[in-house]
Amino acid sequence: MIQDTIAAISTAVGEGGIAIIRISGPQAISGTDTIFRSKISLKDADSHTVHYGHIIDPASGEKVEEVLVTVMKGPRSFTAEDVVEINAHGGVIAVKKVLDVVLQLDGYRTAEPGEFTKRAFLNGRIDLMQAEAVIDLIRSKSDRAFSVARKQAEGVLSKRIKALRQTVIELLAHIEVNIDYPEHDVEAMTSAYIREQCELAIAEIDKLLKTANEGKILREGIMTAIVGRPNVGKSSLMNVLTQENKAIVTDIPGTTRDVIEQFVTLNGIPLRLLDTAGIRETSDVVEKIGVERSRDALQGADLILFVLNYNEPLSEDDRQLLEQLKDRSVICIINKMDLPGRLELDEVEQYVSPESIVRMSVLEEKGLDILEATISEMFFEGQLEANDLTYVSNVRHIALLKRAKQSLVDAIEATHVGIPIDVIQIDARQAWESLGEILGDEAGDSLIDQIFSQFCLGK
Amino acid sequence: MIQDTIAAISTAVGEGGIAIIRISGPQAISGTDTIFRSKISLKDADSHTVHYGHIIDPASGEKVEEVLVTVMKGPRSFTAEDVVEINAHGGVIAVKKVLDVVLQLDGYRTAEPGEFTKRAFLNGRIDLMQAEAVIDLIRSKSDRAFSVARKQAEGVLSKRIKALRQTVIELLAHIEVNIDYPEHDVEAMTSAYIREQCELAIAEIDKLLKTANEGKILREGIMTAIVGRPNVGKSSLMNVLTQENKAIVTDIPGTTRDVIEQFVTLNGIPLRLLDTAGIRETSDVVEKIGVERSRDALQGADLILFVLNYNEPLSEDDRQLLEQLKDRSVICIINKMDLPGRLELDEVEQYVSPESIVRMSVLEEKGLDILEATISEMFFEGQLEANDLTYVSNVRHIALLKRAKQSLVDAIEATHVGIPIDVIQIDARQAWESLGEILGDEAGDSLIDQIFSQFCLGK
Repeated sequence: MIQDTIAAISTAVGEGGIAIIRISGPQAISGTDTIFRSKISLKDADSHTVHYGHIIDPASGEKVEEVLVTVMKGPRSFTAEDVVEINAHGGVIAVKKVLDVVLQLDGYRTAEPGEFTKRAFLNGRIDLMQAEAVIDLIRSKSDRAFSVARKQAEGVLSKRIKALRQTVIELLAHIEVNIDYPEHDVEAMTSAYIREQCELAIAEIDKLLKTANEGKILREGIMTAIVGRPNVGKSSLMNVLTQENKAIVTDIPGTTRDVIEQFVTLNGIPLRLLDTAGIRETSDVVEKIGVERSRDALQGADLILFVLNYNEPLSEDDRQLLEQLKDRSVICIINKMDLPGRLELDEVEQYVSPESIVRMSVLEEKGLDILEATISEMFFEGQLEANDLTYVSNVRHIALLKRAKQSLVDAIEATHVGIPIDVIQIDARQAWESLGEILGDEAGDSLIDQIFSQFCLGK
Repeated sequence: MIQDTIAAISTAVGEGGIAIIRISGPQAISGTDTIFRSKISLKDADSHTVHYGHIIDPASGEKVEEVLVTVMKGPRSFTAEDVVEINAHGGVIAVKKVLDVVLQLDGYRTAEPGEFTKRAFLNGRIDLMQAEAVIDLIRSKSDRAFSVARKQAEGVLSKRIKALRQTVIELLAHIEVNIDYPEHDVEAMTSAYIREQCELAIAEIDKLLKTANEGKILREGIMTAIVGRPNVGKSSLMNVLTQENKAIVTDIPGTTRDVIEQFVTLNGIPLRLLDTAGIRETSDVVEKIGVERSRDALQGADLILFVLNYNEPLSEDDRQLLEQLKDRSVICIINKMDLPGRLELDEVEQYVSPESIVRMSVLEEKGLDILEATISEMFFEGQLEANDLTYVSNVRHIALLKRAKQSLVDAIEATHVGIPIDVIQIDARQAWESLGEILGDEAGDSLIDQIFSQFCLGK
């Protein structure tokens, strides 16, 4: 069992009105009680009550900070253990000083990133899929991504995976009965049953996987590159997109590469715009080094916004780049529609389908709604609003669903070629384990460690 | 009376495990209750209890976020009004979504910066001096600055100001009796009493003002410039100072000027180091444009660390700059003591007193303790540890104390030159009002607005 009591600052670091230190574990209440001076002993406090008092430095006996202490007794707490939250004045020093005192308590240590959520998982309060949704909740950069994560945190998706597992376990039970008591069953009957159950499960997995692309996009945003020759209006487009969303534009420090991206949502559609500097560079590349090199730069993009000037004819560079991008998700933005037309739209349509051409005047902020509708159609089949927000969005889940599906496909295959039933059992068991790994039932320690290490401290 | 209910995010903005929305005002409990789905109605909840549930969007009926809601009924709360705290998942979107729903409630509006603390003041729970200490608590960049602010927030300093006011009010009462019933008293007696009481008060004000310089330094840090020719070890010194303090080094975005400073504490002494770029520029200036210009750059510094290389003789530039800095707080750091000596220490001592010369080897990190002791001696008379942490640190308080003192000095003066007692009464009343303004008793609305506007949102 878990013996350590863990503590960490659970609010974002910085100047704020309130900062919270969260403590969880067997000594959470008794330990904190020894450094808390108040009218009441925390040991006598009811669960889910708040108490005013001071944190005292046990060495000097001096008051360290004026605080509110909340007691939440397990299992009715975030970790399902005894939890104490110390609510201190915001600011860096106040929490640091309180945390220093807390960490000197017997049996206390600093919580690792995600360790509170990990304990909620290890203590069986939530499954791994729900735990992973907690990271997504915190990291989400758009309303929709947040709602998707919240559904998952609630266990909506877990319920469907559990139902899937139920189908597979019934299959497994049937196979095992057949192996143990072959006299009870005709093998042909069993084969038919196996195929039926597997197909049922595959159909459900396919349904889930169908949401994966959209889910991943909602979670991570559509990686979007804006390209075009100089002065077609790329920067203005970038500005319009980011200024319109001032409140939710955030900089995402690149984790795997050294660029800063800007995250904007265009009426609910999350776009991850490659940074302006990068875009400017890209366009220079188009001019100077040619199409080949620029294609490399565009490689990572899910969506390419190709900006053309209505007032200028297509250049040879434009043609080459359009040709190269033919198999990509490209939206061709014809900008400066307020100026006289010198662009042959017919020619553009040789490269891009008419529904992927958006006429805009970025300057007059005209056409943004059409751009948005076009992106929605391209990535969400226009169904963005209607969906019930149950998406499989996590690459780990997607990979495991695919693996489970493959095992089931293998099982069906095996029945057709007369492979012995105890080999088919292995396939079915693998499907069951892959699904279990999604929920964490079959997840190894190293996987679990790796998942929770992505969390921020204090969660 | 206060009618509005105010709400704001009270934790620092960013990714964290927990974020809190604080709500205060007459509708805090009843309003939140309408958007909170739980086993209990908040209206029936006891004060200082925590409740698990969901925030619901009243328009769609959909769950917005899983939350813990804490109810604290006035006057036992931060603002002395009914307060509700909604504890949501950390992250930008989660809190934003909850706040959006909260702000749609009847009679709710966004809290102005500092408005929660302002209400605590307006409702008489704390005085203005305590309220101002709350900003200092949040902003404090060193342990000691934090402790000073905490003492002030507790009201330790307020108590001394109140005692001072008591002395002055007794004086005023005596004068008024004398004016109303001149037959009760001999004027000479009254004069003696006035002088006595005024001197008593002045002595106490002087005691407080004596702490002002140190208090201001603890609160704001010693503005420190590192100067010297290239390659004497300025950058290394900067590095050693900031690296040693990695955990508490913070960047302070300049508010009045466009520079970034680094805040470090050298064993409890807060130093505000001018940014390296600036320092490098300063040293270039010394080289290229001469001493005159560099002195301008150094004008704002409280402390100048003048770095010399033990391995090089004094240059003409060094001599000029040392001459110019003669009346400033300069510590001369003789760096590279590990190399052969080519510097005439006798000559340096013509400009800087021997106790302000510190021999160091920044490379070997030798001599830092001596530097620290030297700074402590220079700014705190070596008494840093012994002090009881009651400092007057706020410029507003210092100015008002000085004004009160001047009124009392004027009153004493007046008794000597035979000015009528009802004129002296005006001086005494002014002293009383100045002291009252410190506590906020006599503070005007615009002053109060200005003070609270310095707060961060949500406090």
